[in-house]
Amino acid sequence: MNITPLPRGIYSPVLTPFTPDLEPDTDRFIGHCKWLLAEGCNGLVLFGTTSEANSLSVQERLTLTDAVVEAGIAPHRLIIGSGLSAIPESVRLTAHAAALGCAGVLMLPPFYYKGQSDEGLARAYAEVIDRVSDPRLRVYLYHIPKVSGVAVTHGVIERLLKDYEGTVVGIKDSSGDWDNTRGLLEAFPGFGVFPGSESYMLDAMKAGAHGCITATANIAAGALRHLYDGWQTPQAEALQEVVTATRLAAQSKPMIPGLKAVLARRDGDDGWLTMRPPLMPLDAAGAEELFAALEAAGFDFPQAAAAQ
Amino acid sequence: MNITPLPRGIYSPVLTPFTPDLEPDTDRFIGHCKWLLAEGCNGLVLFGTTSEANSLSVQERLTLTDAVVEAGIAPHRLIIGSGLSAIPESVRLTAHAAALGCAGVLMLPPFYYKGQSDEGLARAYAEVIDRVSDPRLRVYLYHIPKVSGVAVTHGVIERLLKDYEGTVVGIKDSSGDWDNTRGLLEAFPGFGVFPGSESYMLDAMKAGAHGCITATANIAAGALRHLYDGWQTPQAEALQEVVTATRLAAQSKPMIPGLKAVLARRDGDDGWLTMRPPLMPLDAAGAEELFAALEAAGFDFPQAAAAQ
Repeated sequence: MNITPLPRGIYSPVLTPFTPDLEPDTDRFIGHCKWLLAEGCNGLVLFGTTSEANSLSVQERLTLTDAVVEAGIAPHRLIIGSGLSAIPESVRLTAHAAALGCAGVLMLPPFYYKGQSDEGLARAYAEVIDRVSDPRLRVYLYHIPKVSGVAVTHGVIERLLKDYEGTVVGIKDSSGDWDNTRGLLEAFPGFGVFPGSESYMLDAMKAGAHGCITATANIAAGALRHLYDGWQTPQAEALQEVVTATRLAAQSKPMIPGLKAVLARRDGDDGWLTMRPPLMPLDAAGAEELFAALEAAGFDFPQAAAAQ
Repeated sequence: MNITPLPRGIYSPVLTPFTPDLEPDTDRFIGHCKWLLAEGCNGLVLFGTTSEANSLSVQERLTLTDAVVEAGIAPHRLIIGSGLSAIPESVRLTAHAAALGCAGVLMLPPFYYKGQSDEGLARAYAEVIDRVSDPRLRVYLYHIPKVSGVAVTHGVIERLLKDYEGTVVGIKDSSGDWDNTRGLLEAFPGFGVFPGSESYMLDAMKAGAHGCITATANIAAGALRHLYDGWQTPQAEALQEVVTATRLAAQSKPMIPGLKAVLARRDGDDGWLTMRPPLMPLDAAGAEELFAALEAAGFDFPQAAAAQ
């Protein structure tokens, strides 16, 4: 049986840095993972949408995962993005994460296939779980319909909980819609629901969410952790206001290049700006506008890693 | 330099059969490829949307391609679906196809990433072409926005033709929209435009299309080839009516399971019905409704392969 504690708290979908020739920059990636944990993340999601996961090959994900673990980050602090449209590839990533003892996997539905039935989607997940066949496996479903084009509905969750309770343990809800998150918390008590946005984190925590997996944790882990730790304190509303303001400012530009621009500013090193196309960095004016918006929101810019 | 003639005519995106344990059924696949060529296809697309390409791992695609070529099908009759969201994986599939001497690759844009700029999409294609760096390479762009979520716009094509004329040689336009196809033919004279539907094939041929790459070629290659060969004859309108009626009837059910049901009926063998989830076979009633619709459209059901 799996005795690793279930993930709870603030999880950052870790930005993936690239070298100038567009290869994953492993050293910088490990450095960022360590920094995020030091800043206050309870754990990390390797290969979420914010990580440009779908720009990475299966082999690149496996190699990066191993490198992070070899660098001393405990697998039980890691959730691994493992959902692809091709079942054998989801199996490979999922089996590797389970065998390593990772806290879980975050599994996109087979996102090339829009408009499929709940039964078909549940079977796709079931096929991966059955093939992996590892009692350590824990699956978080990944609902991000605006990006993936495929919703993880209540019908899908119900079908999976019937056969895989204890294995399918939660969901990242990146709908950005509090009504959807509330609906999940009400329909599936005890299910590990993580909103993908901190904009309504306090409400979500009050309703039973297990934490938050949010892109902005890459630059604001400390503030998010304060809110997570303090959601039952009198300061909670004020802490929520701080993180909401940051979120709104961060959303004023495309999220991934914007977050990378903030880290480039932190380090005084443009190496952070590189992305695999079709994603493109912000231009200098766009970055300045983002910084101004964040500043106006009272954002506490992170300091150079060397100063940590 | 590449001296293989450019693809022209009727290309079938080949259905991929699976064994009961959801592995690609290589023998049945090869048999279907040979049957399609015997029925009249000018060539084959391995790993289009109809092929459930995105249900296959990269390795499975490579293995199936090799098996087809080893079975004696000339690479110059093959176009290989090679576009994934991760550049290294698109490179692997594309390089393999070019090295084999395939007629071309059919390349989806990086489909996980919606709403990106023309510049970003063109750079993604360019990065694959540059990394493959093979003078034999010919790229067909794949515009199927309702499924992929990412359009291949005129702006993307213009950018690519500026730097890669002779390498980027055409597009499969699966918009299903004659206005879009006509727009491509008008804007890019000489570009190898293949509509993804035969519903307006005659109009497209008159306007300069190079042929048609259509799902229904899996069951109706003969009629499609007659239209392609006869588009300048007095019978053209009548031939167009026949294929349009078949297309409309075929579209009355989800296309992939419907086509598989017709082949199962042909062979008297339900092995054809298997699909990797999330796709699901038609139920018996659905299959009967499809057969009735096809019959009403005057469709000439294919005969058992053994009788060929």
